Amino acid sequence: MQDRTKLPFGTPVVGVLGAGQLARMMYESAISLGIAFRVFANDENESAAQVCADKTLGNLQDIESVLKFARSVDVITLDHELVPSETLESLVQNGIKVFPSPAAVQYAANKGLMRQELAKLEYPMPKWLLAENLEQARNFFTKFGSKIIAKSPTGGYDGRGVWGINTESELESLIFPVLLEEKVKFVRELSAVVVRSTHNQAVSYPVVETIQSNGICTQVIAPALDLDAERAGAAQAMALRIADDLDVVGVLAVELFDTGSGELLVNELAMRPHNSAHWTQDGSVTSQFENHLRAVLDLPLGSPEMVSQFAVMGNIIGGQHEDLHRGLLHCLARDPKLHIHLYGKEVREGRKVGHVNAIGDNLEDLIFRVTHAVDFLAGTIDE
Amino acid sequence: MQDRTKLPFGTPVVGVLGAGQLARMMYESAISLGIAFRVFANDENESAAQVCADKTLGNLQDIESVLKFARSVDVITLDHELVPSETLESLVQNGIKVFPSPAAVQYAANKGLMRQELAKLEYPMPKWLLAENLEQARNFFTKFGSKIIAKSPTGGYDGRGVWGINTESELESLIFPVLLEEKVKFVRELSAVVVRSTHNQAVSYPVVETIQSNGICTQVIAPALDLDAERAGAAQAMALRIADDLDVVGVLAVELFDTGSGELLVNELAMRPHNSAHWTQDGSVTSQFENHLRAVLDLPLGSPEMVSQFAVMGNIIGGQHEDLHRGLLHCLARDPKLHIHLYGKEVREGRKVGHVNAIGDNLEDLIFRVTHAVDFLAGTIDE
Repeated sequence: MQDRTKLPFGTPVVGVLGAGQLARMMYESAISLGIAFRVFANDENESAAQVCADKTLGNLQDIESVLKFARSVDVITLDHELVPSETLESLVQNGIKVFPSPAAVQYAANKGLMRQELAKLEYPMPKWLLAENLEQARNFFTKFGSKIIAKSPTGGYDGRGVWGINTESELESLIFPVLLEEKVKFVRELSAVVVRSTHNQAVSYPVVETIQSNGICTQVIAPALDLDAERAGAAQAMALRIADDLDVVGVLAVELFDTGSGELLVNELAMRPHNSAHWTQDGSVTSQFENHLRAVLDLPLGSPEMVSQFAVMGNIIGGQHEDLHRGLLHCLARDPKLHIHLYGKEVREGRKVGHVNAIGDNLEDLIFRVTHAVDFLAGTIDE
Repeated sequence: MQDRTKLPFGTPVVGVLGAGQLARMMYESAISLGIAFRVFANDENESAAQVCADKTLGNLQDIESVLKFARSVDVITLDHELVPSETLESLVQNGIKVFPSPAAVQYAANKGLMRQELAKLEYPMPKWLLAENLEQARNFFTKFGSKIIAKSPTGGYDGRGVWGINTESELESLIFPVLLEEKVKFVRELSAVVVRSTHNQAVSYPVVETIQSNGICTQVIAPALDLDAERAGAAQAMALRIADDLDVVGVLAVELFDTGSGELLVNELAMRPHNSAHWTQDGSVTSQFENHLRAVLDLPLGSPEMVSQFAVMGNIIGGQHEDLHRGLLHCLARDPKLHIHLYGKEVREGRKVGHVNAIGDNLEDLIFRVTHAVDFLAGTIDE
């Protein structure tokens, strides 16, 4: 661990549990703001561990070593919501500042708890049931017929831990408890991303449209097209209210189904910088990564305003083509205004290894350029 | 040193000699582009050494250890021009790619050589003489009377190694050889920053005005006001020509005197990311730091186009006030659109410890906000 006494006077120190690409991108903002940044990683080759000067290798289940790490920093924040709740609780009991707090994070880490809490608070959601056993599951299925979804309450992401249920017999393979939800007929998916600081200042990024393929987000369009100001404002207000109700500190992403009839239903919550706001690195005055750090350090938040009319983000999803870097030659030569962000990850089929941002005022052009670049880098096209 | 074989397939590795704030800001771009980045530092508390995961501590005079470092990377570039020429030459003799090359860097590292070479190439410059002895100096002084400047050919920066000579007797304290120059009557100083890649692609940022105080740049205005397109184009063309003539790879900054009569005279050259283009981090599509890395790796260069009508950069110069971070609370609260960049340096009187960028279309407002922030952070005002 680096010697704190050698840092410039007054330098705040943030510790991050988990060392994926979100921690890596927070780190870019930390360097720029002169914030000292320590990462607790599982492996030195993880995305953020590769680049952070100050890393501690360990296991997030090992409470003692996490506690020792946490005592070396001013505040703990998270790269992902899969940090064991016992670990987080133990930090809080030992007087460590943890943002978002374990009391908040549980609603992002456990979809069953999230549904229960948001139902209590009367937020609009798809019909759902946290089924304890097969009989309850059968009853729910009968009610909705062939249109239900089963979700593992914990541990799922990027389409993992989510199953479409088409026949009653498929219910038999589920592990209980399981979250069952009606398969909502939606016209598109939206995301409302807000950032809330420890003393309750909050900012809201424009509501965006997220485009998914096989449960993985492939493209984000900011702002969402043809979303009238009233509904956009309602989505932002809802996200801000949820952040306040659940006492979230840092980024909160509220993923929404747009049912087309004017109703927006809460799909999922994330309490950390979120893929649906990666465009903010190049498309807004203050990125979600910088605002997340400011929020957990109780620094005033930066403007979420866009710097151009539109921003488009495309995820680079690994395919057969292992050499991402060769693709850079072509993509950068073809499009000198592209912003390419790579995570230092080995390419694997279906894995997010980077993203591409483009900003401007011609949305069609931005979508075309971003789509071309991610397809070329993934190797699905070769010209 | 990190194990190269664990990097994703095809990842290029850049090595930087020197670990100041320029290397630190290059590192932010390297992280984002997925480029592996190694720094050769003198001390682990240097600006870039603090944040880089992969650092080698050593002495730039120690050719063997620099060579060992250089053999671990694909290309060597520089944080500053004070790397000993013997070290750079030795790397090239050992087959290492060094950009900018020692043959180019000598003209940035030695102001006497720069004047000789640019004179040969007929670039417009102040009258100058590389005086070998007191007699030559006296002759030059007699010619210009009370209006000459003496410069140490090597080692000077931020006003150090530069002396105004007002009386003939002051010449006696100079160490020879010394570069003597007429004190040009200029209306303002400009800077033309270009980036040139190994295969001779080049981009040019808009010409900016630089404002100095006691020989240190305090503010940069992009683009320079009231500079007609023809003269701006001429300055850019001159910088591009110099880059080509001197075979510079990476950033070249050409500092210019605007004599007001239409003539632009070359003041100094820098061959690395330059203070006069720090505004590009927030004010242009591709920052000088990213383009420098792309240039030395022979990747296609990114667009230097501005993302707003104006950008203003203010340097935070250390004063009596040691706690930079407390000032952040006030500055960020007051101005949510400010971009603050800190270098992780302990405050010392007269030392550049960070800078502030603001972009927008109201120049007067940008100057006011940037000036306020740097003054507040430096502690010269307290509200």
